[in-house]
Amino acid sequence: MTSTEIAAMAVHKVVPPPPRSTASKMKARVKETFFPDDPFRQFKGQPRRTQWLMAVKYLFPILDWVPSYSFSLFKSDFGISYAKLASLPPIIGLYSSFVPPMVYAVLGSSRDLAVGPVSIASLVMGSMLREAVSPSAEPLLFLQLAFSSTFFAGLVQASLGILRLGFIIDFLSKATLVGFMAGAAIIVSLQQLKALLGIVHFTTEMGLVPVMASVFHHTQEWSWQTILMGVCFLVLLLTARHVSMRWPKLFWVSACAPLASVIISTLLVFLFKAQNHGISIIGQLKCGLNRPSWDKLLFDSTYLGLTMKTGLITGILSLTEGIAVGRTFASLKDYQVDGNKEMMAIGLMNVVGSCTSCYVTTGAFSRSAVNHNAGCKTAMSNVVMALTVMVTLLFLMPLFVYTPNVVLGAIIIVAVIGLIDVPAVYQIWKMDKVDFLVCVCAFAGVIFISVQEGLAIAVGLSVFRVLLQITRPKMIIQGKIKGTDIYRDLHQYKEAQRVPGILILAIEAPINFTNSNYLNERIKRWIEEENSMQNKQTELHFIILDLSAVPAIDTSGIAFLIDIKKSIEKRGLELVLVNPTGEVMEKIQRANEAQNHFRSDCLYLTTGEAVASLSALAKMTTP
Amino acid sequence: MTSTEIAAMAVHKVVPPPPRSTASKMKARVKETFFPDDPFRQFKGQPRRTQWLMAVKYLFPILDWVPSYSFSLFKSDFGISYAKLASLPPIIGLYSSFVPPMVYAVLGSSRDLAVGPVSIASLVMGSMLREAVSPSAEPLLFLQLAFSSTFFAGLVQASLGILRLGFIIDFLSKATLVGFMAGAAIIVSLQQLKALLGIVHFTTEMGLVPVMASVFHHTQEWSWQTILMGVCFLVLLLTARHVSMRWPKLFWVSACAPLASVIISTLLVFLFKAQNHGISIIGQLKCGLNRPSWDKLLFDSTYLGLTMKTGLITGILSLTEGIAVGRTFASLKDYQVDGNKEMMAIGLMNVVGSCTSCYVTTGAFSRSAVNHNAGCKTAMSNVVMALTVMVTLLFLMPLFVYTPNVVLGAIIIVAVIGLIDVPAVYQIWKMDKVDFLVCVCAFAGVIFISVQEGLAIAVGLSVFRVLLQITRPKMIIQGKIKGTDIYRDLHQYKEAQRVPGILILAIEAPINFTNSNYLNERIKRWIEEENSMQNKQTELHFIILDLSAVPAIDTSGIAFLIDIKKSIEKRGLELVLVNPTGEVMEKIQRANEAQNHFRSDCLYLTTGEAVASLSALAKMTTP
Repeated sequence: MTSTEIAAMAVHKVVPPPPRSTASKMKARVKETFFPDDPFRQFKGQPRRTQWLMAVKYLFPILDWVPSYSFSLFKSDFGISYAKLASLPPIIGLYSSFVPPMVYAVLGSSRDLAVGPVSIASLVMGSMLREAVSPSAEPLLFLQLAFSSTFFAGLVQASLGILRLGFIIDFLSKATLVGFMAGAAIIVSLQQLKALLGIVHFTTEMGLVPVMASVFHHTQEWSWQTILMGVCFLVLLLTARHVSMRWPKLFWVSACAPLASVIISTLLVFLFKAQNHGISIIGQLKCGLNRPSWDKLLFDSTYLGLTMKTGLITGILSLTEGIAVGRTFASLKDYQVDGNKEMMAIGLMNVVGSCTSCYVTTGAFSRSAVNHNAGCKTAMSNVVMALTVMVTLLFLMPLFVYTPNVVLGAIIIVAVIGLIDVPAVYQIWKMDKVDFLVCVCAFAGVIFISVQEGLAIAVGLSVFRVLLQITRPKMIIQGKIKGTDIYRDLHQYKEAQRVPGILILAIEAPINFTNSNYLNERIKRWIEEENSMQNKQTELHFIILDLSAVPAIDTSGIAFLIDIKKSIEKRGLELVLVNPTGEVMEKIQRANEAQNHFRSDCLYLTTGEAVASLSALAKMTTP
Repeated sequence: MTSTEIAAMAVHKVVPPPPRSTASKMKARVKETFFPDDPFRQFKGQPRRTQWLMAVKYLFPILDWVPSYSFSLFKSDFGISYAKLASLPPIIGLYSSFVPPMVYAVLGSSRDLAVGPVSIASLVMGSMLREAVSPSAEPLLFLQLAFSSTFFAGLVQASLGILRLGFIIDFLSKATLVGFMAGAAIIVSLQQLKALLGIVHFTTEMGLVPVMASVFHHTQEWSWQTILMGVCFLVLLLTARHVSMRWPKLFWVSACAPLASVIISTLLVFLFKAQNHGISIIGQLKCGLNRPSWDKLLFDSTYLGLTMKTGLITGILSLTEGIAVGRTFASLKDYQVDGNKEMMAIGLMNVVGSCTSCYVTTGAFSRSAVNHNAGCKTAMSNVVMALTVMVTLLFLMPLFVYTPNVVLGAIIIVAVIGLIDVPAVYQIWKMDKVDFLVCVCAFAGVIFISVQEGLAIAVGLSVFRVLLQITRPKMIIQGKIKGTDIYRDLHQYKEAQRVPGILILAIEAPINFTNSNYLNERIKRWIEEENSMQNKQTELHFIILDLSAVPAIDTSGIAFLIDIKKSIEKRGLELVLVNPTGEVMEKIQRANEAQNHFRSDCLYLTTGEAVASLSALAKMTTP
């Protein structure tokens, strides 16, 4: 074979992408990172007048659908119960079901999202604030902290939307959420034991161990009347839930069950004067709409850290829930939800809420499911719900006097039981053991340590895992698949065979500071092993590094490539690079400017061409 | 074209790797993550007796070289100066140059590493401890905290080695270190202004702004005698450094310059009684070897958090320096340093040090360079150095009485000036603008905020960047390179052309919870764009997802693949996957067990085969 033939073999040169300025590259990268949805593309090529109209509609989606709204079913999963989870007065829960839905109806882009207080955010807010302030000893301060945290939660949410940092919520993986939700559901249910057993002196802690200890230390406080009533309504609600799950058309059964339970139990207590027989009741609630609360926002430096932290965590958590619910229903009905706009809507809703006696709210799955099943097509359902709450607040409050706490407890338990998703856990176990570990850690952390720490552990673990994949990237030895020019993983494809005298390694990760030391040492060790294995048959002459799967490289990565080339050459071998992608090729070129480390004869477009030309070279030099 | 021909075209099936049990997969993964260097491979296939001998030698590398040690030059870069950086009594610096080198000589595996106190770790320890305790008001407590921090630093270092978590130090990227070192060098130099100008009332803060303010608020304290002496010795030392850098053979000039300066200046002060003319001197130091200090270790809960945090940060920092120095010289002489063993050695050295009145020590670049240039071949040089320090401690201490502080300041400045690596910064700027940003942030953070926070910001930024690469992975549209069967980036290769009716997308990152939402929305938008572009000529029929560069996938990723397949099919298109690698193929198979989402006719080994068979299919269906 002549050298012209060899040259003809490798006709395909590796080229860098066309040069672009740093500014234009930065712009493209920033655009892809923060504006991946290209929110303004619909504006392109429209006349100015239409652009203005579209901009107004973009900001206030209500204008899009208000002409065609349809009334929807009244969903009466009152916020009262969730407010108790946050250790707040029940009335705050009702307030929070009035103002935020109105705000969301104007700003939100999801058609199915029903807005209100949710269990997880309530639980987390309550448990975080209680660490600093006791809600029974200092109720006003506690309320102020709750409103301030809500304010910060809204601020965080709106900022994430405005700064297009929505990807932050993607860091809560499905495995984390499944474990976290299940743990939170158990913690929430345990808290209801107070109402369900009629215990008066209940622990203020949330963990499984202290709660169970408290329950069994106060057996003398257990009230059989309360327990009886609780069990009855629990069975009623669970049956209703079961019916609706079995026959989806009967969704209204479980939708109406909470309201029905409240009415029935209130009547029962009223008729039998059960409050005198050990059954605790809500008691007097004041009539009237939300009072302004901006004067209750506390920016005092003593509690600023606490409220900001609580706001951050509950904000991100409730955002995650709201966006996930919005996405779920959007994909069911095949429309798109604009994540960043949603964040701004939810954020603004909470900022407004914090000034009108509301605490953190978001889109709730259970309410939204009811809306969806009821066939409502626009966010108008939120307005309808708000109006019903308004009527309640104005006129029906006295009726709640006799509502027994035990029924609210039963309603919460049934609501949160749906958060324990056993099939999903099984699916995760089957698919991915590390994800399962993350899930279990989130669950155990929430139950045994604390809600926030469980979440932190799970998020930390999943991020650590992603980093570990980069830090210890996969490298595979490739071989040629018999009868083809295709090179694939030797381990995966039995038909693949080693090419004598050539070691083909593929790196499957960006090369950067976290892995350049590892790659360096690993490749050297591979060459050693290969040498001790191959020298019986043929000597090792060439190392081919397949960079097809290396999307990016940094300065440490380039230093690694130069270093490994030098030490391979010290051993009398030759290093060849295959298919560096755009960015990698650019940086290699830039490194070449200083010193010509990688001449074009050690760059090939495909492994096939590299092997063909190297084999020919080997034949020429060893006659 | 008949269907048999089409079938013949795609003869190469995508197969998963041979099945392995979860346990064996876990084992392999753990091995690759924590034992990438396979430390026990040399033991394989050896007789039991040899294995024992090798194990003993593995633990005590001193046995490997002690029979052939060679004496080396005495390097007298006394720890006195660095101890002052840490706000510790000068004698502690000498103590720290005695015990740790002895310990390292027994346990360490690098032949060139010279051990002792270093500037960065001294600076960080000093600045962290000073935030809580004043070294002048409570000297004993400060000393106790320093020893306890050293103890924890050693513990952290040894644990990282034992738990094989050495990759932690890889998270300090080169860009971070360059910026951090330069910032620290400036902070350290600024601190020397106290000695250099003879100021008595100097600020205890470290930032650029407060130090400069303090310098110019105390102009009346400036002492011309001190300044004159300082400038003279600064010039002397800088000249010596320059000579050694210009003519590497004269390395001993800069190696001897500090000792010479100390001797000359001490003599000068002694002869001219300069201490009476405004030149401050070290004063009386007690003779005698290190006293035990285990009784000074403080595990009191008041300061436990502080000492653990200080230990963690100084431990990791000094480890990074030591390992980097070890690796540099190992690669110069072409031997391997066992990172995890080094960590254990350095860690144990610090634990022992903390019990013998030493503070944090590690391998220092400047000393090691002198050792290397002096041609010493074994860690015996550490023993020699320790012995010299011992002689000093036992007999020469009274000689230091008249050593002027200004000379120590000049020695430190010249030592740390080498840490400002301008060419490296320029290189980073040229290679990678984000790395440059990290570098600048580290530098500015250290100078203007604080040493720890500057470091934290830089590490956070570089990790965030790595995460961002995963969260917003690169996707490229591929086209066929004219006249070949090779498919490459349309943007990078001008010769590549779109295949009509087919959109070929390559994903270049692991698919996981951080990016599955993004990928989902991005692909949908791409299809929309493609449709609005292509429909003039040919209709879009197929989407090919090239998974060659997807090394791993998690449960969210699999959910994404299933979801995108469904929504692509809803639009009347077809999705085809190309070349899923081992792990991805396994998980696809496992997802298929539940429901056959990805039949074998939508999996191809190469893009070429997929395109050929899809084009044929399209021709058959549209006559």
